[in-house]
Amino acid sequence: MVSKNQIKLITSLVQKKYRKQHQLFLAEGVKVIEELLRSNFELENLYVTKPMFPEVLESKKTIISDSDLKKITALTTANDCLAIFKIPQENEIENEGLIVALDDIRDPGNLGTIIRLCDWFGISQIICSEQTVDVYNPKVVQATMGSVARVNISYVDLKLYLAKSKSQIFGTFMGGENIYKKQLPTSGIIVLGNEANGISKIIEEQITQKITIPRFGNLQLTESLNVASATAIVLSEFRRTC
Amino acid sequence: MVSKNQIKLITSLVQKKYRKQHQLFLAEGVKVIEELLRSNFELENLYVTKPMFPEVLESKKTIISDSDLKKITALTTANDCLAIFKIPQENEIENEGLIVALDDIRDPGNLGTIIRLCDWFGISQIICSEQTVDVYNPKVVQATMGSVARVNISYVDLKLYLAKSKSQIFGTFMGGENIYKKQLPTSGIIVLGNEANGISKIIEEQITQKITIPRFGNLQLTESLNVASATAIVLSEFRRTC
Repeated sequence: MVSKNQIKLITSLVQKKYRKQHQLFLAEGVKVIEELLRSNFELENLYVTKPMFPEVLESKKTIISDSDLKKITALTTANDCLAIFKIPQENEIENEGLIVALDDIRDPGNLGTIIRLCDWFGISQIICSEQTVDVYNPKVVQATMGSVARVNISYVDLKLYLAKSKSQIFGTFMGGENIYKKQLPTSGIIVLGNEANGISKIIEEQITQKITIPRFGNLQLTESLNVASATAIVLSEFRRTC
Repeated sequence: MVSKNQIKLITSLVQKKYRKQHQLFLAEGVKVIEELLRSNFELENLYVTKPMFPEVLESKKTIISDSDLKKITALTTANDCLAIFKIPQENEIENEGLIVALDDIRDPGNLGTIIRLCDWFGISQIICSEQTVDVYNPKVVQATMGSVARVNISYVDLKLYLAKSKSQIFGTFMGGENIYKKQLPTSGIIVLGNEANGISKIIEEQITQKITIPRFGNLQLTESLNVASATAIVLSEFRRTC
């Protein structure tokens, strides 16, 4: 049984301002919740439709009906479990190795996929511009499949951060150097741009290395790759040289 | 103004059975519609909220209100235009060069992204298992950003197709050969598996070359890459050797 007040709190967490106010976020689905439980995230409450997660204290667990779960889910299709976790304090930025910087990524699915890719390729720090979608948006958390627990994500004034950095700063542009032919380092910052507009003018000024993923289609019509696809290819290129 | 019958027809096209019955599909947004108009797709009707697409015959174009567009859109957020196109006859399968084969891809966004990637990397033929999501699903059409017009997509009995093929058949598996170290050919079939289950057992039997995208994370927890991310990396690897 979920009380009206609980429903109100939980459903409010789809909005960033309430996540900020309560310092809580939602996670749904066994896989995502398992990964978060295994990490340092602190569980506030867990709602399940059947007995599961034996490792979780009974005092934090509530068995609810499918119809109650439907009332609180942030997803189109509800799972069989929903958890509320505390938003952890932001860790300090780790300025070593490869870093991914996001210039206004707006789509939650893209951010989630990029986090999952960083986790796969052993990149432990993502820097987000302040306009980038919130990492604790339920759709982002879902798309990370739990890898949000293993990548440090910091929101900063991106222009200022890049201006202060002494690293090489890479960005994908039309007409840059062919990424397949370039020697790529094991440290540096890789900037990825907004879905509709790419890397913004003020961030472009900070880029020291413009790179391009060559296009192989016969017709030169495909305007661009989706940013998550571009991220996959770029990170693969940086790592394959190791 | 859109009549009730038109609304009924248009909204029915989110369902595969009605697309099949009417041999029509939906496309939304300027970019997608432009790409389809430029290609060989035959326009049935175009609905716009303001004067646009001057190249389209007035007899095929209807100016409608924003609220009417909201009634007919298949998207959460309506654009300013919606088109109905005829489903073209399936072309014959082109058995040359690199071919991508999909073993039960269920997510429309994933199929759309894979089509866009094939277009980028100059792969003109995709073979889909019969259980793969329909390419004319509105969310697929949307995610392709119009590149659906430039890639030939065929639905077949995948096991039978692979069994008859004389090409090398590649598939991504845990514990396969490191894709970064393998010489990759310019022709062959690349099989990509279902989001939850990967490549199915009966299709696995047909794979002649098992390949793996190495994982670089410190912790060996990330279970897998999203199938669209894996496609991006695999296609990039096949093409970069050209």
